[in-house]
Amino acid sequence: MKYRLIDAEKDHHDVSLLARVLGVSRQGYYAWAKRGPSARARRDAELTEKIRRHHTASDEIYGAPRIHADLREIDGEKVGRKRVARLMRAAGLAGVSRRRGCRTTIADRRAAAASDYVDFYASEHHAANLGQIFRPTQAPLTPNWKHLPIGYHGRAGTVVVSGTPVTRPAGQYIVPDAASPAFGPSRRLDIEAEIGFVVGTPSALGGSVPAAAFTEHVFGVVLVNDWSARDIQAWEYTPLGPFLGKSFATSVSPWVVPVDALAAARVAPHQDPAPLPYLSDGERWGLDITMEIRLNGHLISRPPFGSTYWTADQQLAHMTCNGASLRTGDLYASGTVSGPHPDQRGSLIELTWNGADPLELPDGSRRAYLMDGDTVTISASARSADGTRLGFGEVTGTIEPNR
Amino acid sequence: MKYRLIDAEKDHHDVSLLARVLGVSRQGYYAWAKRGPSARARRDAELTEKIRRHHTASDEIYGAPRIHADLREIDGEKVGRKRVARLMRAAGLAGVSRRRGCRTTIADRRAAAASDYVDFYASEHHAANLGQIFRPTQAPLTPNWKHLPIGYHGRAGTVVVSGTPVTRPAGQYIVPDAASPAFGPSRRLDIEAEIGFVVGTPSALGGSVPAAAFTEHVFGVVLVNDWSARDIQAWEYTPLGPFLGKSFATSVSPWVVPVDALAAARVAPHQDPAPLPYLSDGERWGLDITMEIRLNGHLISRPPFGSTYWTADQQLAHMTCNGASLRTGDLYASGTVSGPHPDQRGSLIELTWNGADPLELPDGSRRAYLMDGDTVTISASARSADGTRLGFGEVTGTIEPNR
Repeated sequence: MKYRLIDAEKDHHDVSLLARVLGVSRQGYYAWAKRGPSARARRDAELTEKIRRHHTASDEIYGAPRIHADLREIDGEKVGRKRVARLMRAAGLAGVSRRRGCRTTIADRRAAAASDYVDFYASEHHAANLGQIFRPTQAPLTPNWKHLPIGYHGRAGTVVVSGTPVTRPAGQYIVPDAASPAFGPSRRLDIEAEIGFVVGTPSALGGSVPAAAFTEHVFGVVLVNDWSARDIQAWEYTPLGPFLGKSFATSVSPWVVPVDALAAARVAPHQDPAPLPYLSDGERWGLDITMEIRLNGHLISRPPFGSTYWTADQQLAHMTCNGASLRTGDLYASGTVSGPHPDQRGSLIELTWNGADPLELPDGSRRAYLMDGDTVTISASARSADGTRLGFGEVTGTIEPNR
Repeated sequence: MKYRLIDAEKDHHDVSLLARVLGVSRQGYYAWAKRGPSARARRDAELTEKIRRHHTASDEIYGAPRIHADLREIDGEKVGRKRVARLMRAAGLAGVSRRRGCRTTIADRRAAAASDYVDFYASEHHAANLGQIFRPTQAPLTPNWKHLPIGYHGRAGTVVVSGTPVTRPAGQYIVPDAASPAFGPSRRLDIEAEIGFVVGTPSALGGSVPAAAFTEHVFGVVLVNDWSARDIQAWEYTPLGPFLGKSFATSVSPWVVPVDALAAARVAPHQDPAPLPYLSDGERWGLDITMEIRLNGHLISRPPFGSTYWTADQQLAHMTCNGASLRTGDLYASGTVSGPHPDQRGSLIELTWNGADPLELPDGSRRAYLMDGDTVTISASARSADGTRLGFGEVTGTIEPNR
């Protein structure tokens, strides 16, 4: 029973190849369905509580090495140092003694995952928000927006697995009233909370994949944080689109949830005008997934993926309607997920309205954009066939200073 | 002596890995320098003459099967059928009996080459021409153009080796006076003649590659035809750049000419304003390469790559200045190469000024854009250290009808 989903998928997906391309164990595909927290996860939760106690008692000065020693000497807990560091990172706890660049038990090897990476722009609320911010004198949505799922290719070589540190990118940006652009570390480093789709079964060059063949080609779903440098992007993106503002890193969750496990979460968004026939084939694969974004452990947004305008099956059909082929390991992401409400926005540029309305964090600090040392974690869940919640794990990353 | 270049490169490039990623034999890297046409190439030329004679004598009705038979029965030539088909395709000869989709001895396996594919926009003449055509009411160059080499990611999975047939893509485009977009085979299918650069040695995530380290990371040069569907591109590209208008196919020449063989062809273009320091490091790697574009065997343009504004070392530095890493097999291309003169333009949209001034071919037909069955071949040469011309082979492709 535990292996139900992988068995169901075996018929047409080459799971071994997929696992190799993604650089993960085949065990990574076993279903999340009906599994409670593992013994390890329960133990992690227990340890996190003890760690938090020591950290707080030290006026939040202690870092992982000191807390590791206290756990052993005071609580008699024999725990690995890397585990302590990982749990502290996950809980957003950082002491002043924390060594920069410390390794944790979260593997930070390169995922080397995606064969090709496409980023869409499927949330109407997000697109309208960005349109208002970037092009205030024009209509928020471009004329093509409701006729096709706008997308563009991202850099596949910098798709990294959750836990990989993200180095603040440098690049050109415009300084107000300056005659020419400046070059330096980004001052508007942002996140984009997205849902990603992993191709399991390739398609032939010159052919197209109908929307109704979605489950024949897409193996499963990951969480994506498509980090963005807004200042770099704003200057470079005319006329050929985003490039260096996005290509420095795209983090994905290490677990791929098979599409078949998500049948109970399917939704069909209302679309007006009616899409062209190649985008209307079959039934929609919108997914009612609730996402949560935490900045340094503090919940800042709950984007509802179900509110997205364009669906994953339509994106697949669009991406291949020109004869472009799919390869095993291809990744395409929804684009930033933003709901209709202000606390459902999937990026800081929207949550703070380009910095005009900064977030206040529990430690009293404020954020327009990300600071070095900030950790962003995106998690998500969806209803499963038996009414329980299906977890997606998480995608997390911490900003390191530009080198 | 024959192996000089590969030996010189061995020290820091992993040639075996590169050959595997590119799907070519290691012999593919032996230098072109000082090699005359091979015995096979001379024999090809001889056979092509005989084929052309039979084809012409038949009022251009005979296709490969009939000509193959005539060669055997009349000339006593024992030649493979696939070779006849390949030579006819290369010579732009097509009979009415030609079977669609016939295979030739040019391997049409997928190159599966590029790890990531980036397309730049480095020719000022090209960018200005396209600006005038696409955005006639605005300045031809966007404000960022002379400050950074504009680029964007293309689809690596559809980079194909020379000789692979190119299926006419379908997509959405705007019909004048229609209320909504239409969907169908592209009616403005075009070429883009470019020079491509193949990465041999990777770089680390979070670091950057200085322009002066160009030869440490870039192995060699290929010819690129980055096929473009102008009608699809014009409708989709706002605001996130080209996508389906480009992603259906990018053809590359099968031979990689090592950068070291091109030292004698180096040029340094004049750049005003002076680029930022990260784009000024070291000496420029502009290259004086003369390209030739043939449509159905007829020379239609001679783009001079030496006239390009941004150079390959600057593009490499720009592409990695944000910490994006390089992988072995990454491909980046110059963007369409257009010189200052009308007969030096690297795309049909420029050569025909968006169809307003069609090309006249020797057979009396006219072309605004490509028709099904058209064959486009790009070749190039550059001066070598001993004063002879170094050939780049060719990249060729024939348009097949949309399926």
